[in-house]
Amino acid sequence: MAYELHYWPSIQGRGEFVRLALEAAGAPYVDVARGAESAGRGLKAMLHDLNDPALVHPPFAPPFLKDGNLVVGQTAAILHYLAPTLKLVARSEQSRVWTQQIQLTIADMVSEAHDTHHPVGHDLYYEDQKPESLRRASEFCRTRMPKYLQWFERILVNNPAGPRHLVAGKLSYADLSLFQLIEGLRYAFPKAAEKALARAPTVLQLHARVGALPKVAAYLRSERRLPFNEQGIFRRYPELDL
Amino acid sequence: MAYELHYWPSIQGRGEFVRLALEAAGAPYVDVARGAESAGRGLKAMLHDLNDPALVHPPFAPPFLKDGNLVVGQTAAILHYLAPTLKLVARSEQSRVWTQQIQLTIADMVSEAHDTHHPVGHDLYYEDQKPESLRRASEFCRTRMPKYLQWFERILVNNPAGPRHLVAGKLSYADLSLFQLIEGLRYAFPKAAEKALARAPTVLQLHARVGALPKVAAYLRSERRLPFNEQGIFRRYPELDL
Repeated sequence: MAYELHYWPSIQGRGEFVRLALEAAGAPYVDVARGAESAGRGLKAMLHDLNDPALVHPPFAPPFLKDGNLVVGQTAAILHYLAPTLKLVARSEQSRVWTQQIQLTIADMVSEAHDTHHPVGHDLYYEDQKPESLRRASEFCRTRMPKYLQWFERILVNNPAGPRHLVAGKLSYADLSLFQLIEGLRYAFPKAAEKALARAPTVLQLHARVGALPKVAAYLRSERRLPFNEQGIFRRYPELDL
Repeated sequence: MAYELHYWPSIQGRGEFVRLALEAAGAPYVDVARGAESAGRGLKAMLHDLNDPALVHPPFAPPFLKDGNLVVGQTAAILHYLAPTLKLVARSEQSRVWTQQIQLTIADMVSEAHDTHHPVGHDLYYEDQKPESLRRASEFCRTRMPKYLQWFERILVNNPAGPRHLVAGKLSYADLSLFQLIEGLRYAFPKAAEKALARAPTVLQLHARVGALPKVAAYLRSERRLPFNEQGIFRRYPELDL
């Protein structure tokens, strides 16, 4: 049976990390909120499931995954759950924990990237917090982005199985997520990302290799891949590219 | 061999979620950065390990746990790793994923609580972002805190094994973490937390029960429990208790 992925239909957002894993593995899935209402899908179907009082394990927020009767929320938990079946994690418990640790660090950086345009409040418009966004983005571009990227560079270079993957000698969901993170940084902060990535050549090589994987490349060319836009996590506001 | 917990020595912070799990399980551990330099411990020892270029799996930031040669960072990953050994999670893979999902949602709320006093930049003082903190805290106290607490209330009430625990019929690290979250909210936002918790009676009962567990109660009375203070995640700034 196909997995059901539930996420906001107009942005890549956090759902994209799950989508990339499903696509890279060639797993059958339905992107529920992007489906037609006439087929029982669409945003309404997602919100119905999100608020279903009968759910024993309700998600707090999208994305969430339905696998038959099982419902899993939280991006990192979804990936941890899916990975053994999708063969996107090495087998040992130690490798699974390390992969999860990398994913959680990517998630932290994603949150910080989001907060550059929404430092004061998630329920306010960017236009209502522009001076604060400038201060926050300055810290992000000059300090946080280079620090995170140097950490990814370091763990790639230190991988005993070689620098082609983050964990062991095979593709994991952490590799896919790092690819997506770099995509987002390059979209939102083209100048700052280029500068910081110049000091992270191994990260750049990983990014290129993941983007060239046949299933990933086919997905990126398809209509299933939403473009980045200014409603998502990574937004191109040139004044914040510092 | 005793576990080594590495975390900033003067705050509860994210390290407290790991500390509570170790304490509740009666597991032997060394709180490295709070130890004496003469014994090879203290802050210097933590920073040495954090920056050790020989580490194959370096943590990005504290807290991190050393278990023999294994190093694990990221609070939720540490708890996920420790829980089976400490008997702080139910056995099935489904229960482990659900417990992790709850922990990650607690972590999201912890980050939002932190950002009430540091919306614009982590490297700035609170005093340099007071108006923005007011706006952010207002959203947190009036919207986000009630929304999160209602979700915890809902999953407790919906637990098929009964509302005494978050997952299955036994104590898990998610129960301990929810206890700590409530402690922090009550410290930082006494008025807003009282109001929101009045609508979450099952959460309050869980909090009381966890705090009365003999090992937890003994820990809370001990010198090992640091007091809350205004350098940590949960800070009492009365002007932000909205």
